[in-house]
Amino acid sequence: MKTMAMQAKTASIQMAEASSETKNKALQVLIDLLCRERETILEANRLDLAETKLTGPMLERLSLEGRLKGIIGDLKEVLELPDPIGETFEKKRLPNGLHLCKRRTPLGVLGVIYESRPNVTLDISALAIKSGNSVLLRGGAEALHTNRALASLLQRALLAAQLPIRAVQLVDSKDRAKVQELLRLHEEIDLIIPRGSAALQEFCREHSKIPVITGGIGICHLFVDETADLARALDVIANAKMQRPTVCNALDTLLVHKKIAAALIPRVIEKLGIAFRLDPEALRFASGPNCFPACEGDWDTEWLSLVLGVKVVADVHEAIIHIRRHSSGHSDGILTEEPAHRELFLRAVDSAALYVNASTRFTDGGQFGLGSEVAISTQKLHARGPMGLEALTSYKWIVQGDYHVRN
Amino acid sequence: MKTMAMQAKTASIQMAEASSETKNKALQVLIDLLCRERETILEANRLDLAETKLTGPMLERLSLEGRLKGIIGDLKEVLELPDPIGETFEKKRLPNGLHLCKRRTPLGVLGVIYESRPNVTLDISALAIKSGNSVLLRGGAEALHTNRALASLLQRALLAAQLPIRAVQLVDSKDRAKVQELLRLHEEIDLIIPRGSAALQEFCREHSKIPVITGGIGICHLFVDETADLARALDVIANAKMQRPTVCNALDTLLVHKKIAAALIPRVIEKLGIAFRLDPEALRFASGPNCFPACEGDWDTEWLSLVLGVKVVADVHEAIIHIRRHSSGHSDGILTEEPAHRELFLRAVDSAALYVNASTRFTDGGQFGLGSEVAISTQKLHARGPMGLEALTSYKWIVQGDYHVRN
Repeated sequence: MKTMAMQAKTASIQMAEASSETKNKALQVLIDLLCRERETILEANRLDLAETKLTGPMLERLSLEGRLKGIIGDLKEVLELPDPIGETFEKKRLPNGLHLCKRRTPLGVLGVIYESRPNVTLDISALAIKSGNSVLLRGGAEALHTNRALASLLQRALLAAQLPIRAVQLVDSKDRAKVQELLRLHEEIDLIIPRGSAALQEFCREHSKIPVITGGIGICHLFVDETADLARALDVIANAKMQRPTVCNALDTLLVHKKIAAALIPRVIEKLGIAFRLDPEALRFASGPNCFPACEGDWDTEWLSLVLGVKVVADVHEAIIHIRRHSSGHSDGILTEEPAHRELFLRAVDSAALYVNASTRFTDGGQFGLGSEVAISTQKLHARGPMGLEALTSYKWIVQGDYHVRN
Repeated sequence: MKTMAMQAKTASIQMAEASSETKNKALQVLIDLLCRERETILEANRLDLAETKLTGPMLERLSLEGRLKGIIGDLKEVLELPDPIGETFEKKRLPNGLHLCKRRTPLGVLGVIYESRPNVTLDISALAIKSGNSVLLRGGAEALHTNRALASLLQRALLAAQLPIRAVQLVDSKDRAKVQELLRLHEEIDLIIPRGSAALQEFCREHSKIPVITGGIGICHLFVDETADLARALDVIANAKMQRPTVCNALDTLLVHKKIAAALIPRVIEKLGIAFRLDPEALRFASGPNCFPACEGDWDTEWLSLVLGVKVVADVHEAIIHIRRHSSGHSDGILTEEPAHRELFLRAVDSAALYVNASTRFTDGGQFGLGSEVAISTQKLHARGPMGLEALTSYKWIVQGDYHVRN
């Protein structure tokens, strides 16, 4: 691990100085290779799928079948984004005549620890290359065949652009101890991004000597205010819950203003036709074999499946209190026509992404125009929400003078 | 500790919603109190000075004598800075019509662990108040009397502005185990800033479950290129080394282009009249009882005293290689009249602050126009270099639509 990390650090010096053209060339070759060797990749992925014991959402996340086209589309977007490196900003002239600015630089070496999703290998590597960083990828054991195939394409793309192949390295091992080793290498690695379960994130927080960005766990809420357009609200709720229930920005708990509970809740149940966990007040408007009383812990559960919690609240204030207590700080929204409620919600709820009259499903680097994302941060340091190119950069202060001395 | 941290978190909600006027009022009252109770503070400080076993630079850092005026000046600057909270930026309209922006928010609760300097108590608290954060202050045992007096003023100022007094709390104990406890409270505390020795920073990196920003250790370099104006270079070198030798942005190693070594080194030795550690090449131009051969480890030493390392290098490339290997990434500079060398240096050296024809002594929140600083970060995540108000903020993404759903 230490050797790999040192190689990554050496590569990062060359990556930091690479021109935009060179970095884009690597991305273009990668896209070409992915199109050309599509079948090789899918075959490796089928091997993983055949060997795995995963089921449910984790299995769905492992499969690349039908997803390569979308991934390639994201890569093209990253290719077309402006290169953030070298950009100067916050220029000013100090009273003593010194010229001060910040110049954007790569972070250096990223360590990414993730579970089943092999698309992460491509998303993160593309963003790392474009932003002049090196990356060490520690994917899940269950995706090893796929990740090997992808890492090989990535290194061929780097080589074709005359960039150092050690800028993207796969930790090619199922050994869990490797992760622990990785987390100690603070002299080589600048940032750890764990993408996966709460247990993985807790493990990284506990053992890492390197700064860690946690996130990707979404206990997401929508509050339907009494002033919302109910017919349209229904579409937003259905979209937030059903469009892709296995992901972090899918809806977990619906909060309903008491004045519209009787009108809305039966229609939600009818339209969605999934399993519901309802508080006693909401249960009054619900019937059917798919409606259950909410249990202890339900409000703190990320469902990742076709289950929705429903709770009736007195007003926007009670909704805010519920969200503050139970949200994971990922994506929460309000559906309302009342500006005062909207403003109160936007001020008082402190999550990475706040929605007004829109589905929570938009919290995503691609949707936000970042091309792709390395993670969705739910902590407040460095980057919050979808992390795109800029989240992989730092800056240096540049001070230019005329032999200035301090008094 | 847990109770204190929970109180800080509760206070942080109220701080986040406080108006600029309210926060400024607290700062104004603080300034008035400091002026009025100047003697009480200095008396407490003299008590600390009398009890301490510190010597040298640490003792100098403990004393407030003659420094209160400057500290009050910094507080006034913070008071006058614009309030960063609530500011929206990066507004854009997505192709699907969604309105996206980021809105600046406080980080929440800061935990600051520092050693002797009691001025840190005021600097950090003022920045925390202005940026709507709560702060837990764990100052050094040797400054406890001073810190108690200052914390009492801070809480009176908060009270006068009707802000929660728990927004600024002193961990009033000499017990080291408190620090370890603090570092575990990741549910309440958002950021740990250790200001002090390398050992303290390493301790925090090792034991913290909370993100840590390290810094404040400066092994600083100036490279004098063959094209520099030597007479003026001499003034910059003297200022960087001598103006305040006990601080992190003071010069540690002077790198001299071989073509000007014979002309410059004797003049440096004569002008500075301090102790020198010279490499064999530089030693050729040095004589006198204050000139010693550099030993193993000298290039990796932060002197914090009137000692200067001097080394002759072949050119700007060798200077860059030396700095890359030995710099702590704090403040490094070049003195040159050659634009190509300047650009190469600015591109290839990766430190928080890079200087062209200026003293390294300017790396400082006050000097950079930030009013003050909570720390000087030498890591790349979140904030680098002097950390002012903006470094104590995060943001939330705000997405406003017309019942938008994702396809």
